[in-house]
Amino acid sequence: MSLPRLRIKKREQQRLRDGHLWVYSNEVETQVTPLKAISGNLVHLEDYRGQFIATASFNAQSLICARIVSLDEVSVLDQAFFRQKIQAALALRDTIFQQPYYRLVFGEGDFLPGIVIDRFNEILVAQISTQAIEHAKPELVAALQEIFGQDCKILFKNDGKGRHIEQLPEYTEHVGAPFNDIELIENGVQFKAPVDGQKTGWFFDHRDGRQWLNACVKGKSVLDVFSYIGGWGIQAAKHGASTVTCVDASQKAIDQIGINAQLNGLNNVQTICADAFDYLKTQDNTTYDVIVLDPPALIQKRRDFEQGRQAYFVLNEHALKRINEGGIFISASCSLHMTSDELLKIVQQVARRQNKQVQLIHQARPAADHPRLLSMPEADYLKCFMFKVTSI
Amino acid sequence: MSLPRLRIKKREQQRLRDGHLWVYSNEVETQVTPLKAISGNLVHLEDYRGQFIATASFNAQSLICARIVSLDEVSVLDQAFFRQKIQAALALRDTIFQQPYYRLVFGEGDFLPGIVIDRFNEILVAQISTQAIEHAKPELVAALQEIFGQDCKILFKNDGKGRHIEQLPEYTEHVGAPFNDIELIENGVQFKAPVDGQKTGWFFDHRDGRQWLNACVKGKSVLDVFSYIGGWGIQAAKHGASTVTCVDASQKAIDQIGINAQLNGLNNVQTICADAFDYLKTQDNTTYDVIVLDPPALIQKRRDFEQGRQAYFVLNEHALKRINEGGIFISASCSLHMTSDELLKIVQQVARRQNKQVQLIHQARPAADHPRLLSMPEADYLKCFMFKVTSI
Repeated sequence: MSLPRLRIKKREQQRLRDGHLWVYSNEVETQVTPLKAISGNLVHLEDYRGQFIATASFNAQSLICARIVSLDEVSVLDQAFFRQKIQAALALRDTIFQQPYYRLVFGEGDFLPGIVIDRFNEILVAQISTQAIEHAKPELVAALQEIFGQDCKILFKNDGKGRHIEQLPEYTEHVGAPFNDIELIENGVQFKAPVDGQKTGWFFDHRDGRQWLNACVKGKSVLDVFSYIGGWGIQAAKHGASTVTCVDASQKAIDQIGINAQLNGLNNVQTICADAFDYLKTQDNTTYDVIVLDPPALIQKRRDFEQGRQAYFVLNEHALKRINEGGIFISASCSLHMTSDELLKIVQQVARRQNKQVQLIHQARPAADHPRLLSMPEADYLKCFMFKVTSI
Repeated sequence: MSLPRLRIKKREQQRLRDGHLWVYSNEVETQVTPLKAISGNLVHLEDYRGQFIATASFNAQSLICARIVSLDEVSVLDQAFFRQKIQAALALRDTIFQQPYYRLVFGEGDFLPGIVIDRFNEILVAQISTQAIEHAKPELVAALQEIFGQDCKILFKNDGKGRHIEQLPEYTEHVGAPFNDIELIENGVQFKAPVDGQKTGWFFDHRDGRQWLNACVKGKSVLDVFSYIGGWGIQAAKHGASTVTCVDASQKAIDQIGINAQLNGLNNVQTICADAFDYLKTQDNTTYDVIVLDPPALIQKRRDFEQGRQAYFVLNEHALKRINEGGIFISASCSLHMTSDELLKIVQQVARRQNKQVQLIHQARPAADHPRLLSMPEADYLKCFMFKVTSI
């Protein structure tokens, strides 16, 4: 079967040759290959001479109109295509992780734009974000069942806000036996998470940061702001923190912290259902040996940068006020548009205003289950800095 | 005792207010406080109105003529001064490390410009790099003995090339019982290092990178290029690598690898005494599952950048050729002038030339015994990237 061709403008080719996987709609030579003339969701990219470059998923309505899924001349995303990609991703995880709890497929980082799959042992939670992958879902499922067994349980949590960009409907769908919770072990600590919670149910990208904190938290009081279901806080408590306070605006998340504390036999985890901004600004003046500030993405779009920066500034300012002399401050951001330099600048400014010195003592990154292509700086979204805080 | 004053130009003050610790000689208001008129090696910095800013070590001959040692109006670097600084540094290490093997004092990062001290249990190896600290050596020694006991063994390894910048003589000096070797444990592996080797005898800054490799090296063949005494290679062998090959140009380092292999009961560590460039380019064509490329600083000065970049390029190019399909490549640089972005660009370019895809799967940093002030980007010297390598 021959696929529609998409011709790339001459001056736009180099980025693709350098390994970038995205084509923006203004990079297409529309006089030769008009976007509107293309039907289907899979195309072959060609250079200005008509030479094949790559196979890509396609959506004329999207600003990123094509995403490279293979450097081979593939004509269909069949079971064998998915098998090869997923097995390569699995081989990487097998090298690094002792236990089957990790992000199995991280979109572009695993050369599979349009899919994220998190693995919780025999349970797979997937999110699809392109029409091409959505269309090939039966082949994707067949490949997953081939690799993980016919009895593996798959949840398509296709209810993300991003789906409307690709004109995809929002829905969730179980393949195999349905389930309400996922169970996992991270850094030796057990968790239960509801599948109707945030994203896939768990944030594996902070695994290494939490591990770092676990190693130095003994006997310390910890405040976990934007705690969700206690990823940081429960682990800190399990690793010997004297007291842990988790703050989250969702009552459902707070309830789940109670379940996770019980699961680990912990009785020193306090929960507060409150808006984190309000809580840090106004409610009580307790100070802590360790504060973890891990907000959701406060800058979704570049044009919202300044407003978002202000929000990070305020949060960091109020958090830093609550840290005991010699304590540890963990400041994270998962906003792509909040760069490392910008976040470090905020912490430094806030510290100077409070006459405090901050020493950067660690930087955590997502682990090898979030591989990153050097050609795609867009994937470097997570920042997580650890500071020692002292008065001047 | 009143110290000489050093007036900072109005427009140069902000960097110091923001927490930077260095004053360049062209930032001094020499019409008010001529550099040549100042005697002694300790000064009080003042702003353009004559208001006190900080106490700094001073050397009129150095491009960086002053380095802030205290924000208080200190008149002498006495035992109490060093005690307070070293105890703060020790408190940070006590929070993070289980065993007494670490960089105890990291110059500016511990608010102590002019001193680096590495701790190997009861042994302290120090390097002094300013006249002010050199002058106060008896008080520094008294503070160390007060904290670590009168019997602690101190070696001043003041033989670094940088000493001539401050017109300091090169020498080594033992305080307490003399010794020839240091012993340490890193990531559970024992090492012996000669004190007349490189720097203080050990490179603690790669501890976390080695720990990462240890966790995924089982059954793999490893090449450790610029191995020195086997920091990466011996640990990999101890953690289950099938074979380890260490390449270093120093016969003394190679001999020490033999000692360290024996110390850990290892018989699968091969050593090759050779120039790493020659070795990678010409000698045999063996390929490996893992290659660690950790060269010394190949760019010492900014003006040598292009030549140094070429050297990194060649090394990375030849190393990447020797990696088995699906293998792991670790590329490090301790040159301040080789930025993360530049090193990543080199690896990406090299990979494209070889039709290989590299996924960035980890980034290691020096641990909390190398704290960094946000105000001083000059301290962000070490890059260490881990890649998975596959063919296109």
